[in-house]
This record gives sequence, structure tokens and C-alpha cells, in this order.
Amino acid sequence: MNIEQEVRIKAIRAKCAAGALRTTSDEQRNDALMAMVREIRGSAEAIKEANAADMRAGEEAGLSAALLDRLLLTDERIEDMAVGLEQVADFADPLGIVLSETTRPNGLLIRKVTVPLGVIGIVYESRPNVTVDAAGLCIKAGNAVLLRGGKEAIRSNIALAGLLSDACEQVDLPRSCVEIIESTDREGVQEMIRADEYVDLIVPRGGQGLIRAVVENASVPVLKHDRGLCNIYVDATCDLQRTVACVNNAKTQRPGTCNAVENLWVHVDNLAALKAIVADLQAAGVEVRGTEPVQEACANVAPATEQDFDTEYLDLIISVDVVNSLQQAIAQIQKFSSAHSEAIFTDSAENAARFFAEIDSACLYHNASTRFTDGGQFGMGAEIGISTNRLHARGPVGVPELTTYKWLSAGDYLSRE
Amino acid sequence: MNIEQEVRIKAIRAKCAAGALRTTSDEQRNDALMAMVREIRGSAEAIKEANAADMRAGEEAGLSAALLDRLLLTDERIEDMAVGLEQVADFADPLGIVLSETTRPNGLLIRKVTVPLGVIGIVYESRPNVTVDAAGLCIKAGNAVLLRGGKEAIRSNIALAGLLSDACEQVDLPRSCVEIIESTDREGVQEMIRADEYVDLIVPRGGQGLIRAVVENASVPVLKHDRGLCNIYVDATCDLQRTVACVNNAKTQRPGTCNAVENLWVHVDNLAALKAIVADLQAAGVEVRGTEPVQEACANVAPATEQDFDTEYLDLIISVDVVNSLQQAIAQIQKFSSAHSEAIFTDSAENAARFFAEIDSACLYHNASTRFTDGGQFGMGAEIGISTNRLHARGPVGVPELTTYKWLSAGDYLSRE
Repeated sequence: MNIEQEVRIKAIRAKCAAGALRTTSDEQRNDALMAMVREIRGSAEAIKEANAADMRAGEEAGLSAALLDRLLLTDERIEDMAVGLEQVADFADPLGIVLSETTRPNGLLIRKVTVPLGVIGIVYESRPNVTVDAAGLCIKAGNAVLLRGGKEAIRSNIALAGLLSDACEQVDLPRSCVEIIESTDREGVQEMIRADEYVDLIVPRGGQGLIRAVVENASVPVLKHDRGLCNIYVDATCDLQRTVACVNNAKTQRPGTCNAVENLWVHVDNLAALKAIVADLQAAGVEVRGTEPVQEACANVAPATEQDFDTEYLDLIISVDVVNSLQQAIAQIQKFSSAHSEAIFTDSAENAARFFAEIDSACLYHNASTRFTDGGQFGMGAEIGISTNRLHARGPVGVPELTTYKWLSAGDYLSRE
Repeated sequence: MNIEQEVRIKAIRAKCAAGALRTTSDEQRNDALMAMVREIRGSAEAIKEANAADMRAGEEAGLSAALLDRLLLTDERIEDMAVGLEQVADFADPLGIVLSETTRPNGLLIRKVTVPLGVIGIVYESRPNVTVDAAGLCIKAGNAVLLRGGKEAIRSNIALAGLLSDACEQVDLPRSCVEIIESTDREGVQEMIRADEYVDLIVPRGGQGLIRAVVENASVPVLKHDRGLCNIYVDATCDLQRTVACVNNAKTQRPGTCNAVENLWVHVDNLAALKAIVADLQAAGVEVRGTEPVQEACANVAPATEQDFDTEYLDLIISVDVVNSLQQAIAQIQKFSSAHSEAIFTDSAENAARFFAEIDSACLYHNASTRFTDGGQFGMGAEIGISTNRLHARGPVGVPELTTYKWLSAGDYLSRE
């Protein structure tokens, strides 16, 4: 079987499974999730064995220590996957929700009701836990999932996906509710993202190269999680001490995440805040890069170039500039932002309202850290990613965002006039 | 200026205009729509002059009478465009609607609020009224519009778009709220659908060739209006007379529309209905093509091939088959349907519920004609098309579907724990 055939056959099987899932109850889908939990807990040794083979191959291939760590499955990480599935099973049923209901003057009763999306293709890189997390979220929302993970984790992914299919079978759902592409040829991704006859949505999870390649070449719709070039603006008036703490949180709590702040803009009338923030960040080990006014106001600031303000560091580095007005801050943020998350710190409700109205990003914050952009923090539970799409879903993508709707109408033998 | 430059410059201008539109009030946008109405009414002669040049070129190029009729702008059709804009201005404001609001345990207040999509690119074929209708719907929802019409109507389209831009200017909005690509080179479409840096959504309006080319090649998300291969299933029990009337409505009221029925499936225990429907359709001038059991039951039925059931006739022709069960009807409909609109006629609430649950189409009807799939019939007012997408919007796409949302959160100097 060549890669084209493999993708096509598995996509068709997943499409059939999606048809079976469409009419399942929340209880049946939760039974499938709980069967997955049992399979994973009961097969920890087999999972670790497959993972050990991936680790050996990774070491031979000279993967970095960081990549090897991402690849590694320990008892604790396996248990985390099981607990994650249990939490997903506890979420509210996302299907059959009546979004609107109206009776037209002619008597036609029209209801708009949530239904599954269909087949969701996940293209992801090294972390094998994505296999389980993504499948759990997709199944909860009544979708079949077609997985295509990176070659480093392929043995772990195949082992995990096999367990998930076993679990589906145990509760009388098709094994193909979870399908995995076993070939790791690049062409597999290309085939998958062009299979719009069978695949309803592609969610790419990985670096910018992967995401761009998917967006450029897909005929299947893409829910993309692009880079997070997040900005904070500190206005002329704000609570200095607490702003310092929030900026510290946004930069240092987990600098490698997409909702960490990368650029800081401070109003020229609030150099006190600028100095306090920069000193605090430096004390926390952050490298501060600034424009000339920042270098004049603060010690130990490296020069910041235009390129710096366009860089998602994902590290303990921040670019800082001074602005003359809220308007200038908004213009600079609109210029550099990836439309993910931005925050304003100000005592002016008016300025916060203007920031909210004029900046066109998925998530905006007034006096709160950008780190809140997260499914858990938003009360959605687990998320499959943070969407930087404008269509369908923006910001955290949880189970409800993995659904669509249909229109169900009933009449008394009605014809259109 | 070559075509690449033209598309790029106009897309950038539209993006800037979208920034200005983002902070407008509903009143300002309605003022723009009413200024458009005045411009169109006041410039009917200039519009007809440009249209006459299109008509002359069309005649020279040997366009069919039907195409020439679609191209023609009369006083009445110009007035219809003006009235259409007035109606759109009357719609409810789609922006700033709070879709959800929640306060998290840590005090973070999170609101999900509707905002414009940004820049909407419309790729369309000959009818020049689309220029005005589409622009009106886009502007109402706070979006800038980038128009790319067919070459047959290019002079009419340029004249109309110029008037729309004039109107924007009169109410202090940028002219570029409405931009039109003047070159009709094929490459213009290609450039536009790849301009994902500036264009947020492409809506192709036209034949299947156009739509497939856009879906295959776009990097911008596409809201597609694919073919409407609509199905009706007549169950074992139903009100015979009224079912006959509804099927007649679905087939003959406007056979050239996407919501007209193309395939009819009748339960084997209801041959009385089959005979009555076929005779009624034939009396209305419909060519009935049927499988063997249909030919046995009814007179003057031409043989129907598998290909017939996969054909969107858009004409007074219908394909008919007999099925042994609801299950078989559902399977056949799932096989041939374009997931647009399907109807069941039955006295069984249980069978209707199963039809609704198992068939995965945008619009499903119980005892009502498929012809109801329409923005006006759904109470949305005008529509920009009927979406056969699964993401973002399904079924009729009105003003609310031309928006997205952002998350606006406020805290009391909150850090994430």
C-alpha cells in the first residue's frame, strides 16, 4: 500500500466512522472515553515499550535533549493522558444544543442545532500525548479523528492509537473513529490536507513551517494556531506595583508558550513604570532589548531592532519601546501583533475601551496578564489549540468549537409561496 | 500597473479601510448604505450607459440571450438594488453582540463579542447586481469588500463600485471600503485568493468550475456555495394530496435554483404517492426519469441512470427511485446529496427524527419544501449565498454570518497562577 492509498483508505474509513458517531449519545461517547482510559492504564508497559523504541531511534538520530524529553512517556505522563480523558468525559454534551428556534409567519418551525464537524485531521509534531488528547476532544464532540504525527514518535503514536481504536470497538463503535497514518512520508501530509472529500477540518499543531505549508496547500479548511506575538501596553496611569507583577507574570511564568508577552510598549509619561518593569524583569533573568528612549531611561538594555519587535522569542527576552500616545501604541501593536493576545494596563476605562475596540486580536485584556489565553483559564476545559483564524473559532478551541450546526425545520406540508 | 500589483494594492487599501470600519457605529454604516442608495438612484443614466457598453460587447462576443438578460440593467433592476440596500440598512446591528459573558473564580470577567471579519473578497460571474448586494451586506457587518466580477459585466461593475466608493466618502468613510479589481485577467482571481495577509474570506459566486478552482487554490479561507443536489424522501405514510403539492413546489417553483429538488425517493409501500406525484409533475411539464420499479408503476418515465441521480439538473427534470425502507432512503440520500437541503414527507414523527439525525446536510425539512432554504425565508433578510461549508456558517449566509468574535477580558491587575 503506497502512502496515497493509505491516506485515502483511512480517510474513507474515518468518514464512515463519523457517520456512526453522528447518532451516538453523549453517554456512548463518554463510554468510549472511559474505555480509552482503561486501555491506557492497563497497557502502560506496552506504551512505554513502544516509546523506548522511539527514544532509542531518537538518540541514534541525534535528537536534542529537549526533543527527547518531549518524546519521553513516563508512568506519570501516561497517567496524565488518562486523567485528561476523564476530564473531557465530564464536559457538557456539545451536541444537540438548540442555538436558535423560530417559527416563521407561515408556520415553519426552524431550529439551529449543534452537530459534529465530521472527520478532523490532526497534523502534529513530536509530543505523543497529542494522539490521546486530540482524539479525546474530537470523539467527545462526535467527530472521527485522522492522526498524522511526526516520525520521531511514530511507534508511540501507533501504540496509543491502537489502544484508542480497541476502546472504541469495546463500546460497539467503529475502530476507525480513531485512524492513524502510519507512514511518515512528507507526502502523507499533502494527501491528507487535499482530501476534502473525506476530511472536514485540518488542525496543524507544530512550528510555523508546518502551519504555513498546511495553509498554503490545503483544500480542506484549516484551523490554524499560528505564532503568538503578544503585546502589552502600559498606559500613562496605572497601579505601578501591580502592573509590574502582571508584566512579570506574562513574560516569565512560562516564556515558551504562545500567550507569553514578547513586546512591551510604555507611555512616555509613565517612565516610572518603565523603569520598575525593566528592573523587575532583569532581576528575574529576562534580557531586555529596548529602543533609544528605553536605553536612556534604564540600565543594561541591549538595542532593539525592528526585527526584534517582529520576533516570537519564546524565551526570557523582551522587546521594549516608549510611545507618545495610546494611538501610537495601538498602531504599533496592530503592526507587529499576530492577533493572538494583547493587554493594556491603565486606570482609564476610556482608554481600555478604545484598546478593545481598535485592536483586532482574538483575546484582549484590561489589567490582566496575556497568560490567561487558555482553554482551562477560560473555563472551557481542555483545548485543542489557540486559533489565530478569523473564521469559525478564535482564541481557545475546546470541545464546543469542534462542532458545527444544521438547520432542522418542520411544517404542516408547507410549500413556498 | 500589472495585475499582481493591482490586486495587492487594492487588497492593502481594503485592509486599511477595514480598520476604519471596525470602530464605526451601526448608524454610520447605515448612513453609508443610504448614501449608496442616493448615488444609485441619482446615477441611473450613467449606470445604464456603462451597462449598454457591456451589452454591446456581449452581443459582439456572441453571448446567449440568457446571459445577455442576466447582464442587462433596467430602471427596474437598478431600483431593486437601491431597495435591497435600504432593506439591509434596516437589519439589526450585527456587531458588539455579547455572545457569552462569564466571571471566572479569580475575578476575570470574560466577554465574547461579535466583530467584523475584516476584508471579504467576492469572486462572481455575470450579474452586476451582485456588486451592490454583496457590498451592502459586507459594509453592514463592518467589513471592507474586494470585488472581482466577470469580464462581461466589467463596465457596469466598475461604474457601480465607483458610486459605492463615492457614497462611503460622503459619510467620511474611506473610498476603499469598496474596492474593485478592474483587470479581468484570470490571474487576478489567483492573486486575490492567495492574498491571505490582507483578505480574510473569499466568497465565490458562480458555477462549479469557478468554485472548485477557488477551493483548490485559495490560501484565504473560502465560504463556498457548492451545487445543490437536493433530495426528497416520501415515506410509507403521509398526506398524499399535500405531499404531491409540496413536491411540485420543490421541483417547479423555480427549477433553476439550488434549493430545487433533483432526486425523489419513494417508499415501496406508498406506490399510490409515487403515481400521484409522477402524474402531477408530468402534468406540470416535468420530465420524469425513473428506475425500473418507477417505470413499472408509472407511464411515460424515461430510464434513470446512476449518473442522473448525481446530476443537478437546474431544470424541469427529476430522477425518481423506489426504496424498501427509511434506512435505504437515508443511505441513498447520503450517497448523492451535496449536503445542501433534503426533505422527508411522513406522518411518523419517529421517522422524521431519524431522518434529521442521520442525514448530514445543512438544511433538513419535515413536511416542507426544500425551497425554504433561503435567507429571506429563514427571516435573515438578504443573503450572500447558501453555504455548503461545514465550518463557520452552514445554509443561508446573511449579515450575522459575515462577522466573527473576539474575547474581551477585564481583571483587577490579575496574574495567572
